Amino acid sequence: MHARIPPSTVDRLSVYLRGFAGLEADGAGTVSSNELAELSGFQPAQVRKDLAYFGSFGRRGVGYDVAELKAKIRSILGLDREWNCAVIGVGRLGQALLMYPGFRNQGFNVVAAFDSDPDKVGWEVEGVPVLDLERLTEAAAERKIEIAVLAVPAAAAQEVAERAVAAGIPSLLNFAPVVLRLPKGVLLRQVDLAGELQALSYRLRAQ
Amino acid sequence: MHARIPPSTVDRLSVYLRGFAGLEADGAGTVSSNELAELSGFQPAQVRKDLAYFGSFGRRGVGYDVAELKAKIRSILGLDREWNCAVIGVGRLGQALLMYPGFRNQGFNVVAAFDSDPDKVGWEVEGVPVLDLERLTEAAAERKIEIAVLAVPAAAAQEVAERAVAAGIPSLLNFAPVVLRLPKGVLLRQVDLAGELQALSYRLRAQ
Repeated sequence: MHARIPPSTVDRLSVYLRGFAGLEADGAGTVSSNELAELSGFQPAQVRKDLAYFGSFGRRGVGYDVAELKAKIRSILGLDREWNCAVIGVGRLGQALLMYPGFRNQGFNVVAAFDSDPDKVGWEVEGVPVLDLERLTEAAAERKIEIAVLAVPAAAAQEVAERAVAAGIPSLLNFAPVVLRLPKGVLLRQVDLAGELQALSYRLRAQ
Repeated sequence: MHARIPPSTVDRLSVYLRGFAGLEADGAGTVSSNELAELSGFQPAQVRKDLAYFGSFGRRGVGYDVAELKAKIRSILGLDREWNCAVIGVGRLGQALLMYPGFRNQGFNVVAAFDSDPDKVGWEVEGVPVLDLERLTEAAAERKIEIAVLAVPAAAAQEVAERAVAAGIPSLLNFAPVVLRLPKGVLLRQVDLAGELQALSYRLRAQ
């Protein structure tokens, strides 16, 4: 399925999808590649090339059908079904993530949170129960957890990631500032706050 | 200064830097490109190519001097000086960011936070004062704010970003799930949590 879409295009599909929110609010039925470029910050030629990857072609003078294009992108990104997620680590960041509306709105269903602090186990954050990290394996199977979001301290991240993998969770989104070493086949994305700041300081310095 | 280092290499420099923490804890004086590859998750050839960009060459059988290489990368990334940052938006995410140790440890000095909620103005989070967003322009000048971290709701992000730019803040790190349109010359990085989750759901679906 769509196996030849390059990763950079997949990342841009998310940005196009974000652009649609404004279009729908405006009641627009069609969108041109120029408008999508404006909404997404990419070049029109890039937009046309990206959309052509999955056989979506705008019609000259008409553009793309917004509802159709949105449904297609959502399907490619796997957003036409729900994905069961867990947040591991219920500190400030974990709590912020549990309250993040983007999970639920986008088809990511947070079914559990985990922490090793007995004071936090038993909490409920936005309707999500905080379970004892010791129960990860059994809860991952029971609740069919497909994505683990790691919001644990750096020193704990490798061990917790290995426990998530051992519990059969196939993909991880890691917020801890460490390079995780995981078996081949485990899907991993890294959000690197320090790296983002450093990309800015590099460019500020270079100015 | 180092103007020809490609953006993808700059991103990898941050990852190498993260790898050094473990090396220093181990008391290692030198590191080979193979070890750096192992620590960073990149290929050894990629590591050697990246480091050669700024004229750092390992010595055969000895490798790179850890302290020297770290100092060089920190200098390139602009981390040999402090950068004054502000967090705009003191909801859960903003609070999590204010408590994030990676700011301070890396030379990013959070000098103020801003919110428009009168109940939050006057708070202090981790020693950082929460100021009225109305005071942004004057505070940005007084406190020489160089990086604004936007943790405001999506609906407010474009307006707040424009206020930050108008206040003379030259760079922004945006967490709100919107595409910001800013004047040329403003440095912008985007952290896109929904996009990260979608990159995972795409790959889970494709399996």
